[in-house]
Amino acid sequence: MRTTTGWQADGTTGELRRAPLERRDLRPDDIAVRVDYCGVCHTDLRAVAGHDPEAGRPLVPGHECTGVVTEKGPAVTRFSVGDAVAVGNIVDSCGECPMCDAGQENFCHAFPTLTYGGVDRHDGSTTLGGYSREYVVREGFAYPLPAALDPAAAAPLLCAGVTVWEPLHTLGVGPRTRVAVAGLGGLGHLAVKFAVALGADTSVISRSPDKADDARRLGAHGFVVSTDPDRMTAARDRFDVVIDTISVPHDLGPYLRLVAMDGTLSQVGHIGPVTVETMDLLVGRKKLSSAGSGGRPATAAMLEFCAEHALTADIELLASARVNEALDRLHRNDVRHRFVLDMSDLSGP
Amino acid sequence: MRTTTGWQADGTTGELRRAPLERRDLRPDDIAVRVDYCGVCHTDLRAVAGHDPEAGRPLVPGHECTGVVTEKGPAVTRFSVGDAVAVGNIVDSCGECPMCDAGQENFCHAFPTLTYGGVDRHDGSTTLGGYSREYVVREGFAYPLPAALDPAAAAPLLCAGVTVWEPLHTLGVGPRTRVAVAGLGGLGHLAVKFAVALGADTSVISRSPDKADDARRLGAHGFVVSTDPDRMTAARDRFDVVIDTISVPHDLGPYLRLVAMDGTLSQVGHIGPVTVETMDLLVGRKKLSSAGSGGRPATAAMLEFCAEHALTADIELLASARVNEALDRLHRNDVRHRFVLDMSDLSGP
Repeated sequence: MRTTTGWQADGTTGELRRAPLERRDLRPDDIAVRVDYCGVCHTDLRAVAGHDPEAGRPLVPGHECTGVVTEKGPAVTRFSVGDAVAVGNIVDSCGECPMCDAGQENFCHAFPTLTYGGVDRHDGSTTLGGYSREYVVREGFAYPLPAALDPAAAAPLLCAGVTVWEPLHTLGVGPRTRVAVAGLGGLGHLAVKFAVALGADTSVISRSPDKADDARRLGAHGFVVSTDPDRMTAARDRFDVVIDTISVPHDLGPYLRLVAMDGTLSQVGHIGPVTVETMDLLVGRKKLSSAGSGGRPATAAMLEFCAEHALTADIELLASARVNEALDRLHRNDVRHRFVLDMSDLSGP
Repeated sequence: MRTTTGWQADGTTGELRRAPLERRDLRPDDIAVRVDYCGVCHTDLRAVAGHDPEAGRPLVPGHECTGVVTEKGPAVTRFSVGDAVAVGNIVDSCGECPMCDAGQENFCHAFPTLTYGGVDRHDGSTTLGGYSREYVVREGFAYPLPAALDPAAAAPLLCAGVTVWEPLHTLGVGPRTRVAVAGLGGLGHLAVKFAVALGADTSVISRSPDKADDARRLGAHGFVVSTDPDRMTAARDRFDVVIDTISVPHDLGPYLRLVAMDGTLSQVGHIGPVTVETMDLLVGRKKLSSAGSGGRPATAAMLEFCAEHALTADIELLASARVNEALDRLHRNDVRHRFVLDMSDLSGP
């Protein structure tokens, strides 16, 4: 086994603690990655809060990583030592089902192997995530990181980015599309940047009027204050696509009513049960969808798009030793717009 | 005023009673229709059950009518006395909003005038429905009934028909589309007939294996028993479009899981809140939509399609005096597949 260091749930305080970690010896198609940066995702927050130390499954969060290839197995063809590389939220899949065939490994019928908290398909071990100085991954589930992208600011693209890229891309957003993005967190601010870069007429929907400057700075053309009934009524039926990135359960009705005839509300910020009134879908033939991460082709295409448009996340870069502070502030929505941990304070492999 | 006879909620027993009704004198663009047949819709059942006699608004249900033009106003250009005609569930709209401009009067921003229980836009009276011997309607909200269609069996097309036509048409169902229809009532059996006529590979999803013969008779190519977990698992991700016509609240999860990648579940049988797990939408990028009735262009196109394909509802024709029996049996789902009332036992205008 290889050894490295990472941030692991200690199982008692709900905090993460620096710990030595083991990584597997390289299999033929594995690469070893020196993790330089890892984004802090809402999923990490939920994982730490929900961690059950009794279950005997260690938790090291992190699934938005960028770094450098330090070693490779003998069958690796796509990477060389020294290459800049990125790893997202899945690291393996069955490779045989219709979803894998379609390049949607994220929907693998046998369930994809998650970057952390997953079960390795070969040795049955619990995968440990990117809050660590090294990650070992099949080369097929790593992505070349375009040189044009700052590795720290690119890290959040690997989960937050592809999660909002997927619906924008699938729904055909481009010039003339009217897009609204609800929420301006990690997902929301990237959705705005993508929609603007795709040429869409882009608006932000926010509870706080004081987000208007920020929305404009991100390139948004319009701004709707969701707590102002008159503004919401005026925006009725106005958007072909609404990307709802709000991370807590909430009434979808007000957002569905902003969707134009035959348009779609894509709910990406919250996983769990949602209740809608069928009348809010029926009137205007509206559709509700959801999205979360993406398959390998979409992830690679998204990174290429970002390189072409010099598009990365707006981040607050913290030394990884401040991970608990980052999680606490994320919990309070006190971040503009994504925390990224700098792993250089961890001892290496 | 004109006088006719109809079936009106008596406000005490939850039943309908024969009553004399008044119809307005013809306005310039009105036609008077001798109603020969009227379908019995679930909406009628809900309206009778929910009728509040204290509210002072009379209730005469019925919004799937066919008949003959008996008189016309001086400005009427599309109909002549003696023409076969059909009336659906809306009889007026604002005519000025973007939805009306788009031919989606059913989504009129100022709310369309419903065929019964609506408020007339000119005199403020409560509209009285098609369970009566005469209806007076603006010619623009009546449809020529194609001669190829049996007027009794065509009546349910005007609500049940267009309600399922809309999603099938909007979602581009045609040859090669894999369609499943859940439920085989008034809506469901028409959805099967439409999907088959559109050339789709059509299946029925039903709780009861004993509906298989009926499904085949309607033209369905496949049949899935929803109470058999193995059959449901085998049908996972198999259908591009699932039309859910089940008229009571139910878990949408099992039906969403039958939807193929990028496909749509259209929920048309039940109006009210529905709860979905976002994971059931997320995995496979599936969409949830709803539908109910249609605009004037879609309704006219649907009737033309039916005439070309000799497509009408499978009905049980009852004398209108048996309306309460029809409602009671519909409540118990004891109908194959739609009740139609024969109004010739009512004294005329």
